[in-house]
Order: sequence, then C-alpha cells, then structure tokens
Amino acid sequence: MSRNCLAVILAAGESTRMKSSMSKVLHPVAGLPMIAHVMKSIVASGISDVALVVGRDAERVASAAAIDGVAVTSFVQTERLGTGHAVLAAREAITRGYDEILVAYGDVPLITAEPLRAARAALAEGNDVAVIGFHTQKPTGYGRLLVKDGELMAIREEKDATDAERAVTWCNSGLLAINGSKALDFLSRIGNANAKGEYYLTDVVEIARSLGGRTVAVDAPEEQLAGCNNRAELAVIERLWQERRRHELMVSGVSMIAPETVFLSHDTEIGQDALIEPNVVFGPGVTVEGGAVIHAFSHLEGAHVAAGATVGPFARLRPGANLAEGAKVGNFCEVKKAEIGKGAKVNHLTYIGDAFIGANANIGAGTITCNYDGVNKHVTRIGEGAFIGSNSALVAPVSVGDGAFVASGSVITEDVPADALALGRARQEVKPERAKAIRARNQAIKAARSAKP
Amino acid sequence: MSRNCLAVILAAGESTRMKSSMSKVLHPVAGLPMIAHVMKSIVASGISDVALVVGRDAERVASAAAIDGVAVTSFVQTERLGTGHAVLAAREAITRGYDEILVAYGDVPLITAEPLRAARAALAEGNDVAVIGFHTQKPTGYGRLLVKDGELMAIREEKDATDAERAVTWCNSGLLAINGSKALDFLSRIGNANAKGEYYLTDVVEIARSLGGRTVAVDAPEEQLAGCNNRAELAVIERLWQERRRHELMVSGVSMIAPETVFLSHDTEIGQDALIEPNVVFGPGVTVEGGAVIHAFSHLEGAHVAAGATVGPFARLRPGANLAEGAKVGNFCEVKKAEIGKGAKVNHLTYIGDAFIGANANIGAGTITCNYDGVNKHVTRIGEGAFIGSNSALVAPVSVGDGAFVASGSVITEDVPADALALGRARQEVKPERAKAIRARNQAIKAARSAKP
Amino acid sequence: MSRNCLAVILAAGESTRMKSSMSKVLHPVAGLPMIAHVMKSIVASGISDVALVVGRDAERVASAAAIDGVAVTSFVQTERLGTGHAVLAAREAITRGYDEILVAYGDVPLITAEPLRAARAALAEGNDVAVIGFHTQKPTGYGRLLVKDGELMAIREEKDATDAERAVTWCNSGLLAINGSKALDFLSRIGNANAKGEYYLTDVVEIARSLGGRTVAVDAPEEQLAGCNNRAELAVIERLWQERRRHELMVSGVSMIAPETVFLSHDTEIGQDALIEPNVVFGPGVTVEGGAVIHAFSHLEGAHVAAGATVGPFARLRPGANLAEGAKVGNFCEVKKAEIGKGAKVNHLTYIGDAFIGANANIGAGTITCNYDGVNKHVTRIGEGAFIGSNSALVAPVSVGDGAFVASGSVITEDVPADALALGRARQEVKPERAKAIRARNQAIKAARSAKP
Repeated sequence: MSRNCLAVILAAGESTRMKSSMSKVLHPVAGLPMIAHVMKSIVASGISDVALVVGRDAERVASAAAIDGVAVTSFVQTERLGTGHAVLAAREAITRGYDEILVAYGDVPLITAEPLRAARAALAEGNDVAVIGFHTQKPTGYGRLLVKDGELMAIREEKDATDAERAVTWCNSGLLAINGSKALDFLSRIGNANAKGEYYLTDVVEIARSLGGRTVAVDAPEEQLAGCNNRAELAVIERLWQERRRHELMVSGVSMIAPETVFLSHDTEIGQDALIEPNVVFGPGVTVEGGAVIHAFSHLEGAHVAAGATVGPFARLRPGANLAEGAKVGNFCEVKKAEIGKGAKVNHLTYIGDAFIGANANIGAGTITCNYDGVNKHVTRIGEGAFIGSNSALVAPVSVGDGAFVASGSVITEDVPADALALGRARQEVKPERAKAIRARNQAIKAARSAKP
Repeated sequence: MSRNCLAVILAAGESTRMKSSMSKVLHPVAGLPMIAHVMKSIVASGISDVALVVGRDAERVASAAAIDGVAVTSFVQTERLGTGHAVLAAREAITRGYDEILVAYGDVPLITAEPLRAARAALAEGNDVAVIGFHTQKPTGYGRLLVKDGELMAIREEKDATDAERAVTWCNSGLLAINGSKALDFLSRIGNANAKGEYYLTDVVEIARSLGGRTVAVDAPEEQLAGCNNRAELAVIERLWQERRRHELMVSGVSMIAPETVFLSHDTEIGQDALIEPNVVFGPGVTVEGGAVIHAFSHLEGAHVAAGATVGPFARLRPGANLAEGAKVGNFCEVKKAEIGKGAKVNHLTYIGDAFIGANANIGAGTITCNYDGVNKHVTRIGEGAFIGSNSALVAPVSVGDGAFVASGSVITEDVPADALALGRARQEVKPERAKAIRARNQAIKAARSAKP
Repeated sequence: MSRNCLAVILAAGESTRMKSSMSKVLHPVAGLPMIAHVMKSIVASGISDVALVVGRDAERVASAAAIDGVAVTSFVQTERLGTGHAVLAAREAITRGYDEILVAYGDVPLITAEPLRAARAALAEGNDVAVIGFHTQKPTGYGRLLVKDGELMAIREEKDATDAERAVTWCNSGLLAINGSKALDFLSRIGNANAKGEYYLTDVVEIARSLGGRTVAVDAPEEQLAGCNNRAELAVIERLWQERRRHELMVSGVSMIAPETVFLSHDTEIGQDALIEPNVVFGPGVTVEGGAVIHAFSHLEGAHVAAGATVGPFARLRPGANLAEGAKVGNFCEVKKAEIGKGAKVNHLTYIGDAFIGANANIGAGTITCNYDGVNKHVTRIGEGAFIGSNSALVAPVSVGDGAFVASGSVITEDVPADALALGRARQEVKPERAKAIRARNQAIKAARSAKP
C-alpha cells in the first residue's frame, strides 16, 4: 500500500553571502534554479505534495518550484528562529494527515531521489525519524551521527563531542524524514534553550527517542549534499553537477575529448556515438542525435542536431535551429529558427534566421538572411540544391527556387524561380593607376593631420 | 649483437562498455587511434615485427596500426578464452624464431618505449620472462608482483593474496616479454583450470619458474598503463596525454597561459618563445614557429604559422593555411589552402580560400573569396601591398595586381591591374523622409498581424 | 612613528630553464610582468624605496618595475656568487640609512603585502632578522625553520638536518627583513666557505644570533611563495593567481558558471550580480558593471560594459569599446574604439570600429564600418534609432542621421539625413533557366580537368 508523504522544503534563507539581488534558491545550476533541481528529485522519489517555506522573492521561488505532478503550497516564513521553527511555518500542511514528512532544503540541488527514498523506506519500516547522513573526510563543524546496532542514538554537535565522537566521520546533512502522525507533536516540542536561542530541527531525534520511538540514519554520497552559501560554492555545485552528467553521457557512449570543457544544460540529450569536441556550451533545449559531431567552440541553445550532422567549429545554434541528417553548419555561422535540410551546407560567416533551407542547398560564405525590417520578422525560403553565391543578402520575405543560383555579392529582394540565375550587383569598373593617386592623397591627409599643432 | 623481437599486440576486445560502433582501439587520443600510439612506442623501442591480434573491425584496425618501418601481420582471434589464448592466435608469427616476444595491448596508448626497452633488456640479461609492473596507491584488484632479491617470484591475484601480499603496491600491468625460443612452449602450457575457465597469460611466470627459468619485473610509471574500458576512461587517457605533451612543450620554451585549455594533436609542433593563449585547439598537421602568437579561441588544422605571425583571437586556420613571417589572421577569419604573405593582414570577418595573398596586402573586414561555383574551386591572387576594401567579394578565378585598390563593397569578377582602382558597387541614392514612411508601414503590418483572430 | 624601509629585489637570474629570449621576471602573470606584481605588493606593504638588482634585460626590467609612489634604483649584478652577494650589489642603497631592509625576489609574483608587513612588524618589535616561512606538506629540499619559544634558532639545510629536523614542515622562503642599521654589517660577514663557494643570504640569521641579536620567522601561505624556474611553473603561478582573483570576485557577488574557464587580467573589475559565462578571456583594462552579462566565448580588452549590457557569445571587444546600459554586442561581432549607445544592438557578424552608435540603433547582420583607407582611420556616426540593413558597408567618414534607414546590402559613402532612406545597391535581374546552363558548364569544366593526363 502506497504511503503518502509531504515534503517541506526550506527556501527562505536571506543568503546575504551570495551578495545577490535575488534569493539564493533561484540561482541556476546547469541553467535551472536550484530549487527546481530539488523539486525534480522530490518528484522522482514519489512525493507529490510539497510545502514550500519561502521568504525573499516568494513568488519567483514558488514559480521556479512549479513542476508537473506536484501540488506546491507556499508558506511565508516571517521570523528566522531556526530550522525547527521554519518547518512549522508549514504547520497547516503538516496537519493534513500524511504518513511521512520529509524535510529538505532549496539550496541542496545535487540531492538525488535515492537517499530521499531510503529515508522514506526507513519510516515505512517503523522508524519515527530517519536522518540523511553523509560520510566525509572533513567532518569538522558537522553534527556527528552516533549509531549503535543500526539505530541512531544521537546527533552530537561538534562542541559537545568527546574526542572519540569527533573521530566519527558520518555526519548530519540536515535532511530528515519524520513519522507523519507524530511530526507535529515532535516539532512542537523543539525548544530554544540554547546559546543562540534557536529552534533546531535535529532535536526531533532526541525528542522521538525520549518518547520511545526508534530513529535511524540513512546514507547519501557527500557530493549530493553540497550546499551553497556564496557564489564560489555555487560554482563548485555547478562543477559537481556537470561532472556527474558528463560521466553519465560518456558511459552511455558519447565521446568527449575534454569533458571538463563541455558545459551541459539540465535537459541536454546526446545520442550514442556522438562526438563532442572541446569547448562546447549547451544552453537549454538541445538534443543531439547519435553520430552527430559538435566541433570545438560551438554554442547550442534550443536546437536539434540530427544524425550525421556537423556543427562548428565556432558555430552558434539558437532556438529553433533544426539540422537534418548530414547538414553542416560551420564556422562563424549563426542559425536561428530555421530548418537546415538534409546535406545542406551553411559553412562560413553566415546568418540564417527565420528560414527554410532545402536539402543539399549550398549557402556561400558571408550570406545573410535579412529577416528583420526593424519591426517585423520575415521568412526566407531556399529550395533544394539551390546555390547562394558568397556575400549575398536575401531580403525576406523572399524565396529562391529549387536548383536556382544567386550570383555572389547579390542583394535579392524578389523571388527567384527554380533553376534561374539571379544577380543583384553592380558592374565592375576599373580606373587604371587610380590606386596610386588615392594612396598619395591619403598620405597627404595623414601628413596634414600630423602637422596640426 | 642486435636481438630481434616480435611484438604481439592484443587488439581484439569486444569493448562493449565503450558503447561504440567501432573497435575500442580505433578511438582516437590526440587525434590518433589508440592502436597507432602503441605502434609508435613499439617502433621507438626498436621492434620492427608486429603480430596484431584482431577481432572486430579487423581491417580498419590493421590499417590504423600501419606505420613506417614495421611489418605487421594480422591474426584474427575467433574465440575469447583469455589473454594466453589470444596470444596464441599469433602462433604462426611466434614460431618464426625471434629472440624475444613482447606482449602489449592496443588500448594502452600512453605506454612509452622506455618500459618496453627495459623488458627487452631484462631478457637480454638471461631472464625468461620480464613483466612490466607499476606502482600505485590503489592496488586493489590488480595482481601483485612478489619480488625477492631482484627476482619476480610470483604474480599473486587479489583473491589469493595474504594480508601482507595485499599491502604490496607494485602491480602487474599485463605487458610482458618472453624468451623467444621458449615462448611457444610456455604459452602452450597455460591451462584453464580456474574459476572462469580462461587461459591467463600471466601464468607464464609460474611456468617459466617451474622449468627452472628466471623471471623479473621492470617498472613503468602508473600513468603509462592507463587502460580504457569506457569513454570516461578514454577521456582520462586523453587528459594524461595532453598533460604530458603540454609539459614537454612548456619546458622547451613555449608559453601557455592556461595549458589545461590548450588541446594538442599527436603531431603538433611549436617553437621556442611561441605564446599560446587560453582556449586553443590544434587539429592534426600544425607547425607553429618560435615567436608566433596564437591568441585565445583559435582553431588550427593542417596549418603553418611562421615566426612573428599572429593568429586570432577567434581565428580558424584550415588545411593548407600558410602564414608567412609577421602575417596576421584575426577574429572571425577563416583561411583554407592559402598563402598569407609576409606582413599581410586578414583581420576581421573574412573568408580566404584557395588564394595567394601578397606581402603587406591588407584585406578589409568582411572580405570573401568566392572560390566555389558549386562544382569547382578557383583561385584568387592578390598582389603585394594591395588593399581590398571592406565587405568585398572576389569572384575566383580572379587576380588583383600589386598595389591595387578595391573599393569597399565591391564585387570583383575581372582581373584588376597593378595600381588600379576597381569598383563594383551601385551609386548611393537617398530618399528623404522615406524611413518614417517605412516604419509606419511596418508598424501597420505588425498591427494587422496582431489583430488577426 | 613611521619606519622607513628599503626593499632589495633580486631580479638578475639568468633563468636559462625558461628557454626564453627575455628575462624571467618580465614574463607576465595575468598580463602583468612578474616583477610588477612584486612591486604592487611592495607598495601595498608601505615601502616606497626599492633597490632593483638586475642582470639580463636590465632596462626592460627596470621599466616593468616602475610604479607610482616608489623610487626605484637599479643595480647591475655582474657576477653570480649567491644571494648574499647579490644583495650587496645594492650596497650603495643599503648604506643610505634605512630602519629596515627587506629582501624579495622578482620571480615570486604571488606574494601579498601581508607577510611583508609581518616581517617589517617583527623588526619594529626589536628583532634583527625576520624570515618569511611557509608551511608545506612537501618540505624536501627546503631549509627548515627551527623555532623555539617564538625565536628562530636556525635555518637548517636539508643535507645537514637530523631526522627530527627533517620532519619540520615550516620552511624558508628566502624572503627576509633585516634591521637596517645592522644590515650592511651582517651582509658583509657572509662567507662562502661551503660546497658551492656561494654567499648565502640566509646566513644572516646565524650571524645576527652570533652577535647577540634576536631572529624570528613569520608565516606566509605556501601558494604566495610559488617561484618559477620554467614555463610549466609559470603556468602554475598563473593558475594560482587566477584562482585567487576569481574567488575574490565570486564572493563579492559575481556569478561564474565555470570559473576555471574565465581568464582575468591583473586589472579586471567586475560588479556585483554580473554573470560571466564559461570561456571568457579578459585582456587588460576591462571594467564590467554590476548586472551585465558576458556570454560564453567572449574576449574583452580595454572595454567598458555598463549595467544591463550583454556581450557575446563569440564577441570581441577591443580597446575603446564602450557599451552603454542595455547595449548588446552579439555573436561574431568586433567592436573597437566605439561608443555603443543605450539599448543599441550590434548582434551578428559585424565590425564596428571608430564609431558612435546612437541609442536604440539597430545594426543589421554583416554590417561593416569601413574605417580604414589604407593610411588613415575615419569615423562613422549612426544616429539614435537608426536602422542599418544587413550586409551594409558604411564607408567612413560618414554619418547616418537619427531614425534613418539604410537598405540591406548598401554601400553608404555619403551622409544620410535623419529619417531618410538610403540605398546603394544594384537592381536585381533574373535569368530564367540560366542556373541549369551554368551547372552544366561547370560540370563540363570539371570533366575536362579530370580528363587531363
């Protein structure tokens, strides 16, 4: 029988050390706000009800936390009296009658569903509190998990620990799950008779035990619990996220020559036998099919790259760029909202925006689709096998038919029929010996300038 | 007297964990297949006969292994019954009568000639088997080398080791050399009476000793023995290779501001006092002379950069780009199959392909050599000291003479004599107040669009 | 009462292992010569008199060391007889009568003012010598600092050390401060009766103590004392510098997704809430205001980016680029010596040099300001709200008035009045079925070429 669970996510921190104009939990990791990463793991652990305890930027935080399949209720925390007090901001939700209450944090975005499930499973086995712990080589400053015969006896704070207890390397992450029917009772019993006068959530362990309950600890890898108090720590979290995702992709058959220089987005998908060269940045919404090649110094966002297509080096694919099989987008080319047909080539110094490029069309170097008239965007259509001469401007709305040629350096303002040749350039004139005269004149100007006082 | 040696290279692995459409040993490191790296070290160790034991992609593997100065014979391994069995696939070669048989692997591309030479030297000194070992801080899982008085007494597998033996950190790499006159005998005696029912090559140590022979171990640095079972491990090998080569170049007098962002190819050569800025990718076939500067975000392939030349930032040199002394290729410029003369400047947003640019010529921003007519490539010649105005298109085949000027925005389709001025652009017209009218019209179109139901 | 101090900076090393055509201390870190970094810390520690002991490239070194607020006197070291001898090259300066003599090195660019101040403070407290030490996990090879009751008893060289002394991990950096009134006496007493026959500066500790003086050690973080003997070590110093500066910026409120790919210059300034994406290179002279966004693959030098402006990806800002609030410079765009007005857009494949772009102007893709006539540079002015059609060339000196339109593909050579439309392009012609004929002809040429013997 499935047990229901409420996740209480604390996301109200002031986070002054972030020195930020927005709430810490809105800062992105892999392009997604931290709070949204936490929500994804909450969903993956089978939880569909969330109480979000917010402070600063409450609306934006709630909006960033919205995710399919989860009902989120926001609770504003008005005073900062400790984690135990913060959880009680969600008292109304807690009293709805859940089997389990899971407490998590909005600034721990690397947490996966596994330890959350483990904590829930521990409750299902009859424990009253399940604390998520982590093993670390640097336990200093953390509360130590004192475990005996599989039972969590206490969480010992650094300052209260004996030497033997300090040697313990299993530490309290702060995340924990509580028996839902007892949670409100436990939480209400937390006191603030301590040096800082705060209500500490971890006191629920002692409280549960004093009431005859059983408490346990479950384990999570240390890196999943990396938190974030300033932007240097945020960068560490980003690095850990990137390392994890790159590794997943590589072992699934994606080649990366220098994975540490490939920056993925939260939703980047890459197929087997794709090759990603050094220095590639993926913005959101990119899918790369197997066997595609993304050359060095490429930047992709909202784009699809089909099998056998190649991108870069130095290519920029913007949202709506859709490369069919075997298409090529080369150096210093930008593609936006455009279909690049099978085997079509856009190889050099080109801007393609709001366009349809037919199969096997060849777009010459320096071609520009002039899609914007200052107010509206217009569409350019280029037919199959068409050949656009270098340095041409295609003034949209305009079509070039299948198999048509556009002469180099042309400005095309009217449709070109299939198999026609279009020119829009001036006839060349030559003035013999004139370059000499110009050089002399320019030198004279320079001399005159230098002579000025 | 020189001793002859056969290298047996095992390259038949299925390598399913690579999740690849090709054999593992074909995967490149620094742009060269792994098997080719091994072959280079084989050659450097003085070996000229190789028996290649292949499985998947047999022909491509043999082709990738081809190298000057070595006779390679391929042997197809049809069954996978262990390394001892695999070596015997090359039985025909082994029986040709070599002084030494060296067994190596196609997926250990960082091995250098030194340990191979050391193993061979050990045989020359009268040993029957010389195993290549490595010292490691993480010996778990490897066979330990048990050495006493300079003699290799045994290779102890993890599972059979005592605690004392497990503490040994010198481990078996799998590479070894065998007395050539005894090799077939030793190999034939390997049995498969073990848990997996496989024939283990390392059994030759025990066999040799049981027959009264002497066996030794020689050492190799751990990093040279990094193997590769998935693409994450391939990336590690690539990193180790890059670190090694970058270090060699730096200590030889090449400056790298951020060596970890410079990606070299197997054959990249860079002279003393060259400066390589961050984020530079070298494809195959690049030579950079001393004193040249490669600015950030540059991508070079098949190119030569002479002393005092500067490249980038954001430059792409493709095969056949040849920059003479003091030449400059700047940002968003692509050069392919072209000579850039002494002191010539190609500084901005330019495509130069199939061209000869004279000394001290100045190529304006946005210049395009139109070298392709859809079927053939044609040549552009630009004379010494010529000046090509910005945004010009040079439609090849075409020549611009020494000292000639091309006016900005021209399309040049006919040869320009020396010192002449060429223009190929329309005369400017101005329509007063027309911009206002256009803006109004475009706004109306927009409004009409928005109004649609 | 303020005490005066002379810094003696040793910068005369031959540095043959750098394999460089210039003195080691001239090699840059973060774009600034190593010697200049040392000078900045000297100034910050309150010292205004420096004796520079130079050898190779004496003039360039003196010039690189010049810094506001410090009087620098150069002394040429002609013989290399050890550090004690080298300091005495500055004998004339030492005898001027300083309270303190501080000895530092030109190739230790990461040293900050703090340890220098600490050494000076130790002299002010009555010590005769204060040695700057560092704690390290790898003390092998360094002289160990033997300290008892807060006093430095001796500096023990590796070879003379007992096992207990070798276990000491506090080591001698070579930097030290000496009581100014006794310095010449101490230095003159240094002998060369040792294996190498050199005069060792560190002997002043023993000398001072033998004369009844008190000597102490002060501490500096190990990384501040990283020295440089070859270019691989130079790269390590660069990395440490970059890591330090990136961290400072991040904790001050600058977001960096992948700080290890952001390369700062010695004078880069970035405001709070700016976002720096991966792969950004800052040359000297850049200021980025808070809230600006520098997208991936951007290269900035001598540029100013105001609040809310965005740069890149793939943008190059060269000296004199000045982006006003909300301005945008996008991909494959180069801006040099130009004002980009509020909200103006330069988004694609454009070169803007020597120009003024008015607020909210829109510069189409592929626009080139033709600022160079082969001899002189000229200015382009574009008015507020002007619209420059794609692939246009603006031949400077030229002005486009407020609200004017330039049609795509135009070459503009004469001023355009406000609100006018300017065209400078040929009328389009279409030749039906001609593309077919051209294709056939080109194919025939190809066939003829192939047929040649």
